Amino acid sequence: MRTFKLTLSYDGSNYAGWQLQPHKPTIQAAVEAALTKITGETIRVAASGRTDAGVHALAQVASFTSLTQLSPATLRNALNAEMPRDIAALDVAEAPAGFHARRDCIRKRYRYLIHDGEAPDVFGRKYAWHYREPLDADAMSRAAQAFVGTHDFRSFEYRSPQRASSVRTIYEADARRVAGPFGAARDDGLDGIAFEVCGNGFLYNMVRAMVGTLVEVGRGMKSEKWPAEVIIAGDRRLAGMTAPPQGLFLVRVDYRRAPNDGG
Amino acid sequence: MRTFKLTLSYDGSNYAGWQLQPHKPTIQAAVEAALTKITGETIRVAASGRTDAGVHALAQVASFTSLTQLSPATLRNALNAEMPRDIAALDVAEAPAGFHARRDCIRKRYRYLIHDGEAPDVFGRKYAWHYREPLDADAMSRAAQAFVGTHDFRSFEYRSPQRASSVRTIYEADARRVAGPFGAARDDGLDGIAFEVCGNGFLYNMVRAMVGTLVEVGRGMKSEKWPAEVIIAGDRRLAGMTAPPQGLFLVRVDYRRAPNDGG
Repeated sequence: MRTFKLTLSYDGSNYAGWQLQPHKPTIQAAVEAALTKITGETIRVAASGRTDAGVHALAQVASFTSLTQLSPATLRNALNAEMPRDIAALDVAEAPAGFHARRDCIRKRYRYLIHDGEAPDVFGRKYAWHYREPLDADAMSRAAQAFVGTHDFRSFEYRSPQRASSVRTIYEADARRVAGPFGAARDDGLDGIAFEVCGNGFLYNMVRAMVGTLVEVGRGMKSEKWPAEVIIAGDRRLAGMTAPPQGLFLVRVDYRRAPNDGG
Repeated sequence: MRTFKLTLSYDGSNYAGWQLQPHKPTIQAAVEAALTKITGETIRVAASGRTDAGVHALAQVASFTSLTQLSPATLRNALNAEMPRDIAALDVAEAPAGFHARRDCIRKRYRYLIHDGEAPDVFGRKYAWHYREPLDADAMSRAAQAFVGTHDFRSFEYRSPQRASSVRTIYEADARRVAGPFGAARDDGLDGIAFEVCGNGFLYNMVRAMVGTLVEVGRGMKSEKWPAEVIIAGDRRLAGMTAPPQGLFLVRVDYRRAPNDGG
């Protein structure tokens, strides 16, 4: 039995999220169907974590085991031929026995895109949150520094905590002005904001609750010190809204001892 | 009767191009339907030029006349409420009587995106040409300088010239490495090439034929001097293929005396 590490990119627009669900298209179902067709085995893949309906991945990592004799490169090409065009295998690598994409993950990076121009951005409609009021990216970035460090993030968890602990460590968080996806029509080109956050783990809907909280600062309704108070309060009702899913991208997933990941 | 200048952005993926066609969805039909609904008049809009099926616009310009008493800002908001979500009105401005978006246009800028990474880019599948061989962007940019100036571009026109003249002036042309639309998974982030060209007018499929010619240089099959020879030869069969439509964006359209364009 060989163990593989699979790096995937996907446009989540047409899926009910990563995880298998009856009668709904999911990324996991599409990947498993392709692997089963290629190998002739019934294959289960484990991702670093689920992504919700409409959430995208630039580089999700999943693991699986198989008896296949195919090379990693052949597997990758076969996957890209068999999977729908909104899912791509960026890399397939053989991993040490026992490697598990969720259990062994040590760090994840997410990006969230907001379009705060007055007119709609047709190219961002599936890839950004259209926020109709102008936002102060610098204020949001300063406010986001409250997230950095080791904190109990229960104020940013969607439901009452089901996990043993809602303590997580955030290594980095910032917000900055960016150009729209294809270069904006606006002369300065900067009609979007990217919030980027890197941590050792994230609670359910945590990034989207962080974004919903930061926009309150960005539009001037709350002070830059407010997110720190929300963390301390430990009450989800005090944080901002959960930002919509289509602006969220899983950017990368890191592992302690990287197997040969070919790129 | 008032004359209006309308600046539009659209995702061309789901349309048979700009121009009205029986039984097919077109951008023009969608814009005219919305204007007719808003004003109660039968309105015809004239664009700076047609765009083909699958081609996008960051800022197309169209003109129309109407008896409406609505303000430009109200018209813009009403259009954005009535049009499909893949078409947006960026700006509506009142223009001098007689203003015509095609006849008065003095300069246009196009951008063409190529993704030359080995793995497919799921976010670029409708917005870039996936070219499977690596391309040399610098060589393409040097070769593109042959386009700059006033030339007879019949070698880059799709069909035998139907116009009085196939002479056009190109003010600027370049190709450069860019990041994928949402920031690439690749560490250097630069897995695409943007070709950008600005001129006083373009023949049918001219930008796409320029791109099909430049990739021959970019992959090393032709010398950097070759595009200049293709221009001189004046024969479409000598140029490269017509690049596919989904990588092409109309970026901006300029007019001599800009009416108050609000942005």
